[in-house]
Amino acid sequence: MNVQAPLLARDAARPKAKFRPPAVHQVRVEGFFGPRIDAIAATTAHTLLDRCIAAGMLDQVDPDRPNPGLKIPFQTGNDTVTTQMFWDSDFGKSIETAAYALSRKPDPALEARVDEVVEAYGRLQDENGYLNSWYQRIEPGRRWTNLRDCHELYDAGHMMEGAVAYFHATGKRRLLDIMAGYADHIASVFGPGEGQKRGYCGHPEIELALVRLARATGERRYLDLARFFVDERGAAPHYFDEEARARGRDPQDYHFEDHRYTQSHEPVRAQRHVVGHAVRAAYLYSGMADVSTEYGDETLKPALEALWGHLTEKNLYVTGGFGPSAHNEGLTFDYDLPNETAYAETCAAVALVFWANRMLGLGPDRAYGDVMERALYNGALVGLSLDGTRFFYDNPLESRGAHHRWRWHRCPCCPPNIARLVASVGTYAYGEAEREIAVHLYCEGVADLETAGTKVRIRQETRYPFEGRVALTVEPEAPADWTLSLRLPGWSSAIAVSVNGEAVEVGAHEEKGYLRLTRRWAAGDRVELDIDMPVERLHARPEIGADQGRVALQRGPLVYCLEEADNGAHLNSVLLTPESAFRCEEASDLGGATVLVTQGLREIGADGAALYAPTAPMREAASLRAVPYYAWDNRAEGEMLVWVRQEGAR
Amino acid sequence: MNVQAPLLARDAARPKAKFRPPAVHQVRVEGFFGPRIDAIAATTAHTLLDRCIAAGMLDQVDPDRPNPGLKIPFQTGNDTVTTQMFWDSDFGKSIETAAYALSRKPDPALEARVDEVVEAYGRLQDENGYLNSWYQRIEPGRRWTNLRDCHELYDAGHMMEGAVAYFHATGKRRLLDIMAGYADHIASVFGPGEGQKRGYCGHPEIELALVRLARATGERRYLDLARFFVDERGAAPHYFDEEARARGRDPQDYHFEDHRYTQSHEPVRAQRHVVGHAVRAAYLYSGMADVSTEYGDETLKPALEALWGHLTEKNLYVTGGFGPSAHNEGLTFDYDLPNETAYAETCAAVALVFWANRMLGLGPDRAYGDVMERALYNGALVGLSLDGTRFFYDNPLESRGAHHRWRWHRCPCCPPNIARLVASVGTYAYGEAEREIAVHLYCEGVADLETAGTKVRIRQETRYPFEGRVALTVEPEAPADWTLSLRLPGWSSAIAVSVNGEAVEVGAHEEKGYLRLTRRWAAGDRVELDIDMPVERLHARPEIGADQGRVALQRGPLVYCLEEADNGAHLNSVLLTPESAFRCEEASDLGGATVLVTQGLREIGADGAALYAPTAPMREAASLRAVPYYAWDNRAEGEMLVWVRQEGAR
Repeated sequence: MNVQAPLLARDAARPKAKFRPPAVHQVRVEGFFGPRIDAIAATTAHTLLDRCIAAGMLDQVDPDRPNPGLKIPFQTGNDTVTTQMFWDSDFGKSIETAAYALSRKPDPALEARVDEVVEAYGRLQDENGYLNSWYQRIEPGRRWTNLRDCHELYDAGHMMEGAVAYFHATGKRRLLDIMAGYADHIASVFGPGEGQKRGYCGHPEIELALVRLARATGERRYLDLARFFVDERGAAPHYFDEEARARGRDPQDYHFEDHRYTQSHEPVRAQRHVVGHAVRAAYLYSGMADVSTEYGDETLKPALEALWGHLTEKNLYVTGGFGPSAHNEGLTFDYDLPNETAYAETCAAVALVFWANRMLGLGPDRAYGDVMERALYNGALVGLSLDGTRFFYDNPLESRGAHHRWRWHRCPCCPPNIARLVASVGTYAYGEAEREIAVHLYCEGVADLETAGTKVRIRQETRYPFEGRVALTVEPEAPADWTLSLRLPGWSSAIAVSVNGEAVEVGAHEEKGYLRLTRRWAAGDRVELDIDMPVERLHARPEIGADQGRVALQRGPLVYCLEEADNGAHLNSVLLTPESAFRCEEASDLGGATVLVTQGLREIGADGAALYAPTAPMREAASLRAVPYYAWDNRAEGEMLVWVRQEGAR
Repeated sequence: MNVQAPLLARDAARPKAKFRPPAVHQVRVEGFFGPRIDAIAATTAHTLLDRCIAAGMLDQVDPDRPNPGLKIPFQTGNDTVTTQMFWDSDFGKSIETAAYALSRKPDPALEARVDEVVEAYGRLQDENGYLNSWYQRIEPGRRWTNLRDCHELYDAGHMMEGAVAYFHATGKRRLLDIMAGYADHIASVFGPGEGQKRGYCGHPEIELALVRLARATGERRYLDLARFFVDERGAAPHYFDEEARARGRDPQDYHFEDHRYTQSHEPVRAQRHVVGHAVRAAYLYSGMADVSTEYGDETLKPALEALWGHLTEKNLYVTGGFGPSAHNEGLTFDYDLPNETAYAETCAAVALVFWANRMLGLGPDRAYGDVMERALYNGALVGLSLDGTRFFYDNPLESRGAHHRWRWHRCPCCPPNIARLVASVGTYAYGEAEREIAVHLYCEGVADLETAGTKVRIRQETRYPFEGRVALTVEPEAPADWTLSLRLPGWSSAIAVSVNGEAVEVGAHEEKGYLRLTRRWAAGDRVELDIDMPVERLHARPEIGADQGRVALQRGPLVYCLEEADNGAHLNSVLLTPESAFRCEEASDLGGATVLVTQGLREIGADGAALYAPTAPMREAASLRAVPYYAWDNRAEGEMLVWVRQEGAR
């Protein structure tokens, strides 16, 4: 059963809101993402619960079970796991994934499993509303003593997101009520009032979750709490320092050295550089963008825009991944984008999709839509195997053959994160506003939206992202005047559009990279886009040393890579030439993905054992096959390379 | 005062010895290394003692001073230091450096400072001979409880090396006697007898040091102890495991996971792959080679030769550095030779010089001489600034501008290690045998050697390594029949040799890459070599992905690099072409080093803020200047690059 949100009138909670994403169940996705979502519904959603429970999470949550206590790395089946203080977040994201799976396809067994977990949480919850399995069962008596390191509010946020999704998918209020109760408790503990804590979480997440909770429940107080956390962050005296002293610790004794790691080094409105842990950063900025949208708060915009520019102009991989360093799982210095050692955590690309999507709350702008699409199809989607059973945590752009997908991870944040993103991808495709519907992503499917006081069904027919033709049929319940805004992807320089067969002069209607079609839309109106989708060879700025003399292949939103499975070993001995022409083929071994076939050169090293010799390698013609980056490591193990050598000044 | 070693008849201690290096004071080095040694004598030798004492080492050693206790990172002047359990080793190497400085040039003040340290050690030494400032003053009661991690025998080894050098340089026996006494104590504690420990050090070093002590004192028992340590290593049951259990610890609870880190994973004779910590590895293999030489032990040769092949054919940087990983300061997997993240510790290249030199104890062989020269002139020498005041610890082959020399280091092993190597470089240039003298390295200077029962002075006149002409004058005290073996560097394909003006047919007298000239040598005999020294562009095997499409420039033994100071920023936007011709110039800003000047191309990125764009960069002609790798980071800070892009199949 799907339930329409919100419960209360929307506008109560959004005085100046502009664009909001539709709920997941409003969009039925087929085409490219359809089989991926089906795999999640059929497999991944169960797998996530299996692995969470095998690791002992349910034992930790359920007060009726023996307390498993703290477990340092131990084996369960084929996996090595460790008790983590953020396990509730993994359950939260797994429940969220299960919810989207249930939106996709009824599955009583899955629903029963989720209900079991929900009931355990219900039994665990304190009378005052508090709910955190780590602090209630593993480390009792320490609540709210270490917000900097211990993910306490972060856990709450993910459980809230799970609760909203599960409510939307099933109509069951139990978890939503549990988490609303916890949110109320949090609002009593944290705030500007006397006796309240002026703290916030070391790992942002609850900010955006509270906005979702507010939107689902219509309760403005959750928005206010989100805004409080955003506003307090980085204020002096620094909460984390005071808190450390209260624990009897020296605030300087901090593994991550300073508060940039948690983006609390200065008030958020003063921030201009993306720093610290990548996922935290993008979650925080997502929450900031939500607050800015919901309150029409213009004072957050200069920070948001500067942070966006800093990330996308100086610190983003071509895959839409970011955060090159394993040490802090995050940022280092500008243009530090090494390929083989790229951390580029799956969760960071997922979080960037969230952030970009929230930036679109302020209105359609290709600057955000293009990056959202890049991160989604490449840096995020690569995190999930084609069959939905295995996961990447870090995502290098080059591998010498030893980088492979995990069944699970000691820090299991990425598996449910990429699963929930893919299973809810429809929500990222659209934005609904007062008298406007924005189409941010193209994908075969049907969306039931609302604008100008009427319900509007939009049907997309397309083989996107493998082909650039998209036909949109607009079916409002009643004719009305509103604007349909269609993203004109920045990677295409030739886009033809027609409405009901009549060509539209694209340039005349373009605004910030969106084609804005304002008219009285009536049932059966048909918009056709023909987005030219050539194979592009991308060159990197000279500051990115590792990519010089190399190109990344991109077609449409997809970044490509070479794999050893297709091209043999020693991928750095392979060259493209300016003359290399590309042929698109459908790859039956990769779920029908379009792959690129071309002729290049291969260098053959001189004979002999010498590591280094004055003899240049010989060259011979070579057939090369590039596959979408998201699809790599789904076949035989081997090398992988995104940035391919190319010679010649073109 | 220089004292001729050894004290006892040589042959007592070397039943089947072949080639031994001369003592440092036997070789007076000028030319290329002369000014470097002068800088060490004038500056570095003092600086090392200054920094050791400023860090508190003398306070730790001297029982008459207040015990400074354990200090976690603290500031002294401009340096951050930490008490290290291996501080004695740093004193040992600093004393060794001071000794070579005193061999170079009398310096009563320096000698007095060393004497002060020696006296402190004398006061510290236990009645039973034991001597270790960590275990006597910082962690008393724990002697010989953790050989795996705590460097106890390693400390002893470096102090022994310092003692031998100081005795040779000054004739003073005090430290030699102290360390001989300690060696005797160690021999009583360790050994195969009942009640003795069958242990060995987690960080090899004492093995080679005991051989030096045996050679200096003529005492065979020190050789026997070295052989014991070599023979026991890796035997079952594993000593480190037993020792951990005796400490009440789980042997599995080990940061470095397994015994490969300490090269004790299997008996040394079974070892075929260079693994673990790089410096430990090469020190161990040095000790093994010494033992093999001294005992004529052929059973060590298969391991030594396989290990040598594994290092030089699969794991050596073109600079002669090795050990790519910071995590274990050592080896990872074959062909893992990343440039920017190369650890390639200065000490590892120094240790490789030691190992290669010990392999030459088995007889002249270019396989060892060439690598010794490569490591010496590049990966090791780079560790010391031209003025002798600053040091590199890790040595990447590419830097984006943030890698700079240290005044000091928390782990101050490299500064005295590279200083003692350079100050003693003469000893690596020659090998003396029964009826043969081998010349391994060419450098202006005079050596006083001995063979065939007569003293032989060899004078080299040359601008090597900047020019390939070398004139050797042989001055035996009495004419005698013996062989003069001259290394024919493998990097040269055209070497002309004459004896007293008469051309020698090189091929007819070559053996393992050495020209072996056997004759009755008489005073005034003159050998002239003309070693062709073209600029070579080295290509790397295809397994080394990062180097493909690139060349390393080498001329003679010197590997070159580009620096931002000469070539501007964005060194990866610079290309060589097959047509690029090189001109040699003398660089006044780099101590007269020969630099390479050529024409190449520079790419200029497209305008705009985009990180990635389909527009290929423009190209323009560019003058390029490459400088010896050892000389980088002696001018303005900036980028550096060894492997330079080159296009075209040549």
